[in-house]
Amino acid sequence: MKINIAFIGFGTVGRGLGDLLLEKREELARDYGVEYKVVAVSDIKAGSILDERGIDLEEALKLADAGTSLETMPAQKKGLSALDTIKSSGADAFVEVTWTNLTDGEPGYSHIKAALSLGRHVVTTNKGPMALHYRELLRLAQDNGAKLKFKGTVLSGTPAFNLFDGPLAGCSVRSIRGIVNGTTNLILSEMEKGRGYEEVLKEAQRAGYAEADPTMDVEGWDATAKATILANYFYGTDIKPSQVKRKGISSITLDQVIKAKNRGERIKLIARADRTEGGAEVSVSPVALPMADPLANIMGVTNALTFATDCLGDITIVGPGAGRRATGYSLLTDLLSIARG
Amino acid sequence: MKINIAFIGFGTVGRGLGDLLLEKREELARDYGVEYKVVAVSDIKAGSILDERGIDLEEALKLADAGTSLETMPAQKKGLSALDTIKSSGADAFVEVTWTNLTDGEPGYSHIKAALSLGRHVVTTNKGPMALHYRELLRLAQDNGAKLKFKGTVLSGTPAFNLFDGPLAGCSVRSIRGIVNGTTNLILSEMEKGRGYEEVLKEAQRAGYAEADPTMDVEGWDATAKATILANYFYGTDIKPSQVKRKGISSITLDQVIKAKNRGERIKLIARADRTEGGAEVSVSPVALPMADPLANIMGVTNALTFATDCLGDITIVGPGAGRRATGYSLLTDLLSIARG
Repeated sequence: MKINIAFIGFGTVGRGLGDLLLEKREELARDYGVEYKVVAVSDIKAGSILDERGIDLEEALKLADAGTSLETMPAQKKGLSALDTIKSSGADAFVEVTWTNLTDGEPGYSHIKAALSLGRHVVTTNKGPMALHYRELLRLAQDNGAKLKFKGTVLSGTPAFNLFDGPLAGCSVRSIRGIVNGTTNLILSEMEKGRGYEEVLKEAQRAGYAEADPTMDVEGWDATAKATILANYFYGTDIKPSQVKRKGISSITLDQVIKAKNRGERIKLIARADRTEGGAEVSVSPVALPMADPLANIMGVTNALTFATDCLGDITIVGPGAGRRATGYSLLTDLLSIARG
Repeated sequence: MKINIAFIGFGTVGRGLGDLLLEKREELARDYGVEYKVVAVSDIKAGSILDERGIDLEEALKLADAGTSLETMPAQKKGLSALDTIKSSGADAFVEVTWTNLTDGEPGYSHIKAALSLGRHVVTTNKGPMALHYRELLRLAQDNGAKLKFKGTVLSGTPAFNLFDGPLAGCSVRSIRGIVNGTTNLILSEMEKGRGYEEVLKEAQRAGYAEADPTMDVEGWDATAKATILANYFYGTDIKPSQVKRKGISSITLDQVIKAKNRGERIKLIARADRTEGGAEVSVSPVALPMADPLANIMGVTNALTFATDCLGDITIVGPGAGRRATGYSLLTDLLSIARG
């Protein structure tokens, strides 16, 4: 099958997908019968180009990585806004990878709505629209015969949602617990070595793991968005991030971390989504786990989820939760799943 | 889609599938469009019945669990051998769950060949034929337009092979390391509490985790079969279990386990399959792992595999590696994958 792709957003994650599309071009055609063409890229910083005959992806990646505007490339149209790109690119699938906004989900929310309304597929790693507006967007997709895939919003390319498509088909989920934020897990891991919260946070900021404003991570907002997406997907609920019991790690002291360690426990920021009668209970909070818990041993920026299932009991998956390549790969699996029907 | 199923073997694992088929009948029809009928069961102990109009699965499970012959049930034909059942049942898919034999793979090998030769699908948890004759059986399946699925030979229902169908599509595996034998992992876990190998082994035998002749487990044969199947599947090789470097745990002393623990390490029986230029290197041996290794923290009968991949780095999956329900479930996913095309 042939698929025309347009990028809405072309930052780290979008370019991660770009790398893999180039690297895997032959393999995708040979092993999956999937041929692709990139027909547009629209990014607020990198510039906007559209060419239905196809864009040179390799050149676009080079320019964007070098900080040079994409609009220096030849293209039929240049400078179109994201929404105009969606309306006029003729793409079969849009890769929505603009920034996450947990207040109203914009601008991703409008981008996804526009694409789905036109019956076009969307793959996204944008947690804002998916945490805030999942039910509405899902309905819009169904009404317009389009697919909406968002694998990378949780655990990046590490299998989570799609575990239950084939490998765990017929298996139902009763409870999900996990470490879904690498930054806070890195901070807690480093604190166990005897270093204070502030010191470790500053180092994580210098290393680029934590943002200048670390609120999203350390106050548990990022984990909350992910727990919400998991609950709404697996339990059919319509929970909003604001309804989630949320506690971050900013009040965790070195003393607490060391005392837990001496008790044979480890403090982890645990996102939790339990199925309840007719709904779900979702929470994010630091929990002292016994060392025998598989999640207690997840260190550094690694992520993990434990699914309690009816067929198999507990299944735990461990892998990267972020990164250009890993998150780019989540979009590739979503595109493949669409292209393969 | 409608699928007619026949059981060749109806011991613990076959009945585990039977339980789930009954429990999930409506769900399979509603969510996956799959309707099934059991047309034959042939087991050397439980008896053999064949009825193309369909067999009462609930009754068959009750009888087999109670140790009563299935031949006390009404059926068109009774007492057929496994091979005659395969030839005359008209089933679309055979569930081959006879005992594992790592010497020549029989009788499963002949059963699978007979079914595939007739163009019928096979799902199996039988490690013997898959470890010894994978390439030949795969070719036979392809030549006859049949499918051969063997998910449960490694990690029972916990996703392993099928992770790479959808969730990790396009991702290639460079190396696999894992804990694939629950009995030896249970023994090593218990030894860490200060108990000797012989004492723990005897307890595991009393509890039914270890066989009266524990050679298959403790000398690493079971793990070797699984590592062979993984290598041949993922790397396209044709390695035989006899070619695998194999060392079991029977020579591991309490002293070694405790010394490793004091060094911050844990001894685990590690099955390993690495891709090499034009082949694979496969081994099974006890390894002292640092506690930071995700596999170091897998305790008791739990199993785990770490896949080193090109797209995501290391992905680890943790879950049950045996059990009536978990292994029965592996067959259900295989059947679903066949029925869904």
